[in-house]
Amino acid sequence: MPLIVQKFGGTSLENAEKIHRAARRAIRAKLEGYHVVLVVSAMGHTTDKLIALAREICSDPPKRELDMLLTTGEQVSIALMAMAIDAAGHHAISLTAGQLGLLTDSVHTRARIQRISRDRIDHELAAGRIVIVAGFQGIDPSGEITTLGRGASDTTAAALAAILGAEVCEIYTDVDGVYTADPRIVAQARKIDEISYETMLEMAAAGAGVMHSRAIEFGKKFKVPIHVRSSLTDGKGTMIMAETVGMESITVQGVTLKEDLAMVSLNAVPNTAGVAAKIFAEIARHHIMVDDIVQNIYDAGRFANLSFSVNAGEAAEARTVCERLMAELGIGGVEIDEGVSKVSAIGVGMRTHTGIASTMFEALARAEVNIENISTSEIVISCIVRREDGPRALRAIHGAFGLDLAPGRAGP
Amino acid sequence: MPLIVQKFGGTSLENAEKIHRAARRAIRAKLEGYHVVLVVSAMGHTTDKLIALAREICSDPPKRELDMLLTTGEQVSIALMAMAIDAAGHHAISLTAGQLGLLTDSVHTRARIQRISRDRIDHELAAGRIVIVAGFQGIDPSGEITTLGRGASDTTAAALAAILGAEVCEIYTDVDGVYTADPRIVAQARKIDEISYETMLEMAAAGAGVMHSRAIEFGKKFKVPIHVRSSLTDGKGTMIMAETVGMESITVQGVTLKEDLAMVSLNAVPNTAGVAAKIFAEIARHHIMVDDIVQNIYDAGRFANLSFSVNAGEAAEARTVCERLMAELGIGGVEIDEGVSKVSAIGVGMRTHTGIASTMFEALARAEVNIENISTSEIVISCIVRREDGPRALRAIHGAFGLDLAPGRAGP
Repeated sequence: MPLIVQKFGGTSLENAEKIHRAARRAIRAKLEGYHVVLVVSAMGHTTDKLIALAREICSDPPKRELDMLLTTGEQVSIALMAMAIDAAGHHAISLTAGQLGLLTDSVHTRARIQRISRDRIDHELAAGRIVIVAGFQGIDPSGEITTLGRGASDTTAAALAAILGAEVCEIYTDVDGVYTADPRIVAQARKIDEISYETMLEMAAAGAGVMHSRAIEFGKKFKVPIHVRSSLTDGKGTMIMAETVGMESITVQGVTLKEDLAMVSLNAVPNTAGVAAKIFAEIARHHIMVDDIVQNIYDAGRFANLSFSVNAGEAAEARTVCERLMAELGIGGVEIDEGVSKVSAIGVGMRTHTGIASTMFEALARAEVNIENISTSEIVISCIVRREDGPRALRAIHGAFGLDLAPGRAGP
Repeated sequence: MPLIVQKFGGTSLENAEKIHRAARRAIRAKLEGYHVVLVVSAMGHTTDKLIALAREICSDPPKRELDMLLTTGEQVSIALMAMAIDAAGHHAISLTAGQLGLLTDSVHTRARIQRISRDRIDHELAAGRIVIVAGFQGIDPSGEITTLGRGASDTTAAALAAILGAEVCEIYTDVDGVYTADPRIVAQARKIDEISYETMLEMAAAGAGVMHSRAIEFGKKFKVPIHVRSSLTDGKGTMIMAETVGMESITVQGVTLKEDLAMVSLNAVPNTAGVAAKIFAEIARHHIMVDDIVQNIYDAGRFANLSFSVNAGEAAEARTVCERLMAELGIGGVEIDEGVSKVSAIGVGMRTHTGIASTMFEALARAEVNIENISTSEIVISCIVRREDGPRALRAIHGAFGLDLAPGRAGP
């Protein structure tokens, strides 16, 4: 019997009506002959409300207790979903991560999945039940409750789909798929029908908020197609899947804008072995997330200018860390620019096409957007621009790569 | 090191300020040299809100899923309480029933405690932590989440106090103790300083809502004093404890009013062996809770009039069950009176004092309250009265037994 994993996010569960709608979708898949495993998030803005409640109690709650608190949101959802399916006359059972046996490491608030037991799920499916799993949560080997990080119900779904050999992992959300750009900024953005895991990973990393990166990694590693689709309509969404030949004919598949960044620039950094390592070890020790890193050398290689972007909220801490390192490492100066954004163009096709970078730079020049930093990788080109230029920059490159006119499909 | 169990109910946890207040109380006990175990209920009206949410989804939710849903309320409370203690610079750890090892049978929504493991609690206490336990919840031998019935966080607290050999089990609530009568009805009601387990059990059964009966049973069985006290003040409340010599000198310790009852009267019931058994087996099979049972025989013992009280909400179902039995058992008639209440006088001293019943009946006569049924047991006299007469009846007997003037203490 084929198996399907369906994941419903908070906006698809925010009231009784939407829960019933999600339940009907699961039942329909069951009636079509599938074993059905549902993964659910907390209802609506529950997680934000719980975090606000914790902050009322204390500014920096212990992470173990934060996990204890936040996992209640998904537990409410699984119970209500089981009730909705029961009310429709079908059999369902809700399972917490503990009951299911979804084991993680012990790093509270950002645990990693270590092992998922099939036994309980297989038993319940064999008994004819729709199995409803609480997303986002896990337990560590000593029975402590953990969470996988914000938005990680996608990861739970993809991991279950992988372990259970699902035909597809459906991610139901309030948009109808992955777009060539954020439609709130670029009116001409089009839905992408098919996209490779690699391209989707880069788009997510570059700021496309639609999916959790770790979920895509699970799909890629275990070759489970992930279908991102709307919980409100029956239309096809975006299939994230292994690369097909057709995909190569498209150069750029999407463009993204990542806002609220700060650029940290270290000037006149002595270019000797171990300096960069020392800097980023210190940054990591303070749990500051680093986005892109760019370095140039000068003065016959004696010095380097090293810059990296961080979330604007962590700029002050990054400055403190870097200033502390200045004397020790003999760095010339530390500058922080908090008002920047990053525009990126992503596409598997970029590997084999030339002229992508120049097309992007020309488009930005025509739109009178000044480029601060540039970084490129195999399938991404990113430019740091002034925050106020971000949306205009995004629209400019979306048009320049022909995405405004694209038929909305990446495949053949 | 002596150990104390403190239980905080929903009204004592309804916002951040009250949670901090409860945390301070636990910390104070710790600083006084106690091992401290906290048991908490869901915040404020959380449980009612969760039940309302379930009813939005379906009218009759599966009990397993209801338990899955409702236990989230206490899980939120334990996490927030741990955060509050941590914020005050002390060490705490929250434990779900599963983590603690509080095993119950598998009867969802009204499970019974079977076994409580000391290991985890002892380990955490030895590490210097205040242990915070989710009340109301348990797990069955196969890891299913159960609940012990509404209001059963008291039971969790008393059971833990018993198993851990606590010096006292403190029940913090929004009233400052157990009263001789409900102060909302009887203005002259006084706080009782000491009361025996037996008297408190009868008062709880007769309608005094302050504590869960099963909690008192645990206290009685394991000889743990239970201190019912206010979470808002430092004053002493009511100590529920083994009977003392002094208690015997008081005849009636309290009076109660149980409203919203219905009286089911079966007339001309053939008085042969097994008839009553058959009737109450059927009633039980329909999960109808029976309050008091009264039977008189007449016609040289050939017939009996049998009546019993049930919650008004279950009157219709009780009628259906009894009418179905009429023909089978040859019962003369079934009458239901939905508009009744029960007033009771309770006291250990009643055993050895005469004239209690006549004092009660005279007081009701003077207040022009008509008595419908009467039942008495070792330490309780109850009268069924018209619903509208209930409050007047309660005030009348409160005065007649001298409780209006009592010095507010049952002890010497």
